[in-house]
Amino acid sequence: MVVVMEERATEAQIEHVVARLVEMGMDVHRSTGITRTVLGAVGQGHADKGLIELLDGVHEVVRISEPYKLASRTFKPEATVITVGDIRIGGDEVIVMAGPCSAETEQQVRTTAAAVRRAGAKIFRGGAFKPRSSPYSFQGLGEAGLVLLRDAARAENMALVSEVMDVSQIELIDRYCDIFQVGARNMQNFTLLRELGHARKPVLLKRGISATIEEWLLSAEYVLSGGNTGVILCERGIRTFETATRNTFDVSAIPVVQKLSHLPVVADPSHGAGRRDMVTPMARAAVAAGADGLIIEVHCDPDRALSDGAQSMFPAQFDRLMAELRIIAPAIGRSICLETVARRGWGQ
Amino acid sequence: MVVVMEERATEAQIEHVVARLVEMGMDVHRSTGITRTVLGAVGQGHADKGLIELLDGVHEVVRISEPYKLASRTFKPEATVITVGDIRIGGDEVIVMAGPCSAETEQQVRTTAAAVRRAGAKIFRGGAFKPRSSPYSFQGLGEAGLVLLRDAARAENMALVSEVMDVSQIELIDRYCDIFQVGARNMQNFTLLRELGHARKPVLLKRGISATIEEWLLSAEYVLSGGNTGVILCERGIRTFETATRNTFDVSAIPVVQKLSHLPVVADPSHGAGRRDMVTPMARAAVAAGADGLIIEVHCDPDRALSDGAQSMFPAQFDRLMAELRIIAPAIGRSICLETVARRGWGQ
Amino acid sequence: MVVVMEERATEAQIEHVVARLVEMGMDVHRSTGITRTVLGAVGQGHADKGLIELLDGVHEVVRISEPYKLASRTFKPEATVITVGDIRIGGDEVIVMAGPCSAETEQQVRTTAAAVRRAGAKIFRGGAFKPRSSPYSFQGLGEAGLVLLRDAARAENMALVSEVMDVSQIELIDRYCDIFQVGARNMQNFTLLRELGHARKPVLLKRGISATIEEWLLSAEYVLSGGNTGVILCERGIRTFETATRNTFDVSAIPVVQKLSHLPVVADPSHGAGRRDMVTPMARAAVAAGADGLIIEVHCDPDRALSDGAQSMFPAQFDRLMAELRIIAPAIGRSICLETVARRGWGQ
Amino acid sequence: MVVVMEERATEAQIEHVVARLVEMGMDVHRSTGITRTVLGAVGQGHADKGLIELLDGVHEVVRISEPYKLASRTFKPEATVITVGDIRIGGDEVIVMAGPCSAETEQQVRTTAAAVRRAGAKIFRGGAFKPRSSPYSFQGLGEAGLVLLRDAARAENMALVSEVMDVSQIELIDRYCDIFQVGARNMQNFTLLRELGHARKPVLLKRGISATIEEWLLSAEYVLSGGNTGVILCERGIRTFETATRNTFDVSAIPVVQKLSHLPVVADPSHGAGRRDMVTPMARAAVAAGADGLIIEVHCDPDRALSDGAQSMFPAQFDRLMAELRIIAPAIGRSICLETVARRGWGQ
Repeated sequence: MVVVMEERATEAQIEHVVARLVEMGMDVHRSTGITRTVLGAVGQGHADKGLIELLDGVHEVVRISEPYKLASRTFKPEATVITVGDIRIGGDEVIVMAGPCSAETEQQVRTTAAAVRRAGAKIFRGGAFKPRSSPYSFQGLGEAGLVLLRDAARAENMALVSEVMDVSQIELIDRYCDIFQVGARNMQNFTLLRELGHARKPVLLKRGISATIEEWLLSAEYVLSGGNTGVILCERGIRTFETATRNTFDVSAIPVVQKLSHLPVVADPSHGAGRRDMVTPMARAAVAAGADGLIIEVHCDPDRALSDGAQSMFPAQFDRLMAELRIIAPAIGRSICLETVARRGWGQ
Repeated sequence: MVVVMEERATEAQIEHVVARLVEMGMDVHRSTGITRTVLGAVGQGHADKGLIELLDGVHEVVRISEPYKLASRTFKPEATVITVGDIRIGGDEVIVMAGPCSAETEQQVRTTAAAVRRAGAKIFRGGAFKPRSSPYSFQGLGEAGLVLLRDAARAENMALVSEVMDVSQIELIDRYCDIFQVGARNMQNFTLLRELGHARKPVLLKRGISATIEEWLLSAEYVLSGGNTGVILCERGIRTFETATRNTFDVSAIPVVQKLSHLPVVADPSHGAGRRDMVTPMARAAVAAGADGLIIEVHCDPDRALSDGAQSMFPAQFDRLMAELRIIAPAIGRSICLETVARRGWGQ
Repeated sequence: MVVVMEERATEAQIEHVVARLVEMGMDVHRSTGITRTVLGAVGQGHADKGLIELLDGVHEVVRISEPYKLASRTFKPEATVITVGDIRIGGDEVIVMAGPCSAETEQQVRTTAAAVRRAGAKIFRGGAFKPRSSPYSFQGLGEAGLVLLRDAARAENMALVSEVMDVSQIELIDRYCDIFQVGARNMQNFTLLRELGHARKPVLLKRGISATIEEWLLSAEYVLSGGNTGVILCERGIRTFETATRNTFDVSAIPVVQKLSHLPVVADPSHGAGRRDMVTPMARAAVAAGADGLIIEVHCDPDRALSDGAQSMFPAQFDRLMAELRIIAPAIGRSICLETVARRGWGQ
Repeated sequence: MVVVMEERATEAQIEHVVARLVEMGMDVHRSTGITRTVLGAVGQGHADKGLIELLDGVHEVVRISEPYKLASRTFKPEATVITVGDIRIGGDEVIVMAGPCSAETEQQVRTTAAAVRRAGAKIFRGGAFKPRSSPYSFQGLGEAGLVLLRDAARAENMALVSEVMDVSQIELIDRYCDIFQVGARNMQNFTLLRELGHARKPVLLKRGISATIEEWLLSAEYVLSGGNTGVILCERGIRTFETATRNTFDVSAIPVVQKLSHLPVVADPSHGAGRRDMVTPMARAAVAAGADGLIIEVHCDPDRALSDGAQSMFPAQFDRLMAELRIIAPAIGRSICLETVARRGWGQ
């Protein structure tokens, strides 16, 4: 922590600040210039930035280390690659996850899984527990939905990612899925994150709708500090003043996160855009910006979807998108599922 | 729902939209003007706004009812007064809740409770489970903290409000507290809200840091629709571009919510401001704007608080604030704890 | 400027940063700790923060002085009181400015002026040149409007404030008005601000809709650095994600600005709220938060106003508001126009 | 305009609303459903949305036409292609504009122009009048800068775009440049926009830092309604809560604007990102999202630039970016300057 004193700060004020820092367990290095005194505080203690800012004579206080450690590039300079079976997230290949918002019927789940698999998706996505703003909206099929999703993923030889909304659902999701998804609204459900720190499967951690990148990495830290090193970050749009789109898809977060952290970062253009016709350009933009993967809502009949129909793609749109992405990815030295993968047999 | 067709919409497009609405269970009323056709859709069905917007020829779709019902003034025109013992929240008196961010020691809890009681606070606040952005910050004393808080509240004859972070904590909090507090980060923890709908004590529901007023009322709806009619809304600042304050305290939300909903709304100027010297003007502004109550962090020794020290008031500052509020409240026909209340004996 | 180096920064990187700072005209003080090196740079030169941040081995760069000088409390600790005739803005009295959005007719201007004067307003407001988002909206009466406004102000013995939109209008506005108003959209029209720095009348500088407080004070600096010391700051609502109100009225900006700057700050609850029924609570909140004044839209017949009708108060509403404010102001040791002021004879 | 009445609205309230709409010059179509009455109002009159919203019994008011006309796809369905010499902006080719933030010296301007021309840029950019937040920052060379820029553009056979900050500069900029640039801070300088409506050269209109897409198109309407059909829109980042980047580059604005308007839209990743290392991924993302062009800051020696050095690219970075864009553009059926263009001889 660096404490910049005011120009008019008195010696007594400076000494009081030093004393408080020492009391908080810090070693203090004082540096006096022509107009100002600057104090550098380091050590094992915990110096409360807010409290120091309120002391008389203090002009500004600056933290000099990120509050997250395990998630940081300083801690681990090389990029983390997370493996799920033979899928490598964070490597050269851009991994595409696709599927319906919610599992609805066996037919819907099967048809959609086959369609996205054919187009090149390697991980199947689908929800059984749905966080909905209104208590009157469709809330998902629960375990019955997980059975449908797992069966379809197995049939298509795909891995499966599905959302966990509460600590009480962890065991159930774990039984059926390969990756836990934590939704944007739960990004700061610390009880849930702490528990997932003890899980042995990766966690796809969506960015909260108004979470700063620092808060997002701190939430990742909750999982990492529990011992689970498999955190995949997922940008899905932030809330801004603009109402022409449901959220503002923050494409710049992708390279920023890659600079600050070693964790892979994927993009969710479906929620970022909120409408089907905007998903394609946003998916292309995310890959061009360097995303390690995409997670996309596709539905065999989106006009009749029970949730998120407006932002779910038709299978044919998804095919076209995959073709476009195969042109874009090489521009930055990456690839997108070019050959058919061999059977892997997850979830058995 | 009102569907405004584009000027160039064809007859076939209009008929397709009508057919889709009917399929969704709506009755459709068509009204054709010189340049445009407007469709009014009402009924018991659920018309998906996003899907209709994507149909060819549709210019704009407007929902004509709020998505919340029980929380709305349309449903219940008269203001709701929530009683906790003989305290009435939402009546003529502006109710002040005060206390430390976290319970730390018996001495700290007792001293603070006595100070805020003397100044006129009727409800004691304090946390035992703390949601912290960083896994490395102080996380609260747990049940031991609840014991301290309850004892102090009993000694001072105050009601007690404390935060519940997870479904698994409901039973414990219920044993010690009179009001459940749901924090901003949990405003859309739907599993938690649903469970609190079955509780028999009021819920103080903080507004999420980037929640619209509509989303906030929908979260209240989760609790109300479970049968618990005691929801107290709490404005605590929203996230904006401005960084000079930690959050932007949205004072205008107070009269807006009072217009849209019958539920009482209180203000949390401590989190809204983020620093002690800003709490006083924000508390005065909230009461002047018509808030039904305040919840304020006060600590007997804020400079040594384990959490939120920078935004916790000194007891003497709190005294002065209460004196100022006693002048302001009558300007809008309200009062602030003028006489000493008789013993009530909660939590026994 | 304080430059915090990364933990792994090499000696060569540190020396390169020092060399660059010296090249930019700074004196550099180096302080080496156990894990990090911190460089303090002071001097007459201009160190480009962005460029230093990009240098290898640099962790963070912190500016240690505000970029504004003349507007700062550091430069001038005592509050500035701006006098317009015998009106003192920034003193103990909360000054109320009121009047119609635009001058429309002689009858409308005269009736409104008489009404607001009777209720206690001391400065008349009204627009002759209107910045409108759409080229198809009413754009004001121009000079004819200024004549009407000046005549009404003279008849009621009030000072007059009116908006200047462009350098070319300065001379004209100067001929009729006592205070130049710079609108939110022009807060960074630097050409205009620079010219107003040479004017001999005060400038009411509205905060831009998404201007940080720092940017706002920098815009004040443009006027001050030209030699015009009469800058009155005006908070009028910022743009956030919330759409329930047109803007979010940032009440907390009032005490923040008063802490950072010596300039008086007034509030415009009409634009902050955007609707008549929200103006009263926001005006009360602003005074309770410590505003030095208010500027409020009042119209003798707001339902037929040519602009801003929805946010213009009826005269009777304004009367009631003034009565409420007379109760609130003493809570913070201030007053609101209690006695009738003697004739002053401006603009003659 | 569609007026949705409240469920409990009385017949008298409905009739009053109808009467007010008729008085405002609208034809009203009334449609009564089981629970609500909906009024459709069309016509030549001007119905004030805000005023109608305040009437008793009104639940919601919805505008059914965009406030802009000439900028809208409804008015002109086919995309507008703007020609500057033989350069076509809005056609199949993605047009790249590049150059320094400010003209500083002949050598700097010449070297940079040659470098960007070689890499494939067709339009040279550079500022002579700089809008700076602080009055103490470098403000540009003025006409001397324009001379340098024009000479370099002529030498490299490029078109020239430069910023106009005020009506008084129009004539001068017109003498030297091919395209007028209107900066983000001037997006609602209506006096300036109105004058540019009479110019005979295209206007590159940057989006204001917190302008909605609707406001941006309304500002375009100011220029278009004056008779100048050459408006090029430019996305350059918006202000959000996130501080990890200077602005949040709103890539989704590109397809949204292309849907709402026929005008070409280009992207400014330099200001959108604010730091050099983020410009490349954002430029790729913009092209992948469908931008009609890019405007990029490049400097022959960015570490010594007098303004915006941190976000200016090195020539070698720009070369690499152009190579990547040549791979990406074909994914969406577009190209980027593949062959050398013949001499054209502008500005002679």
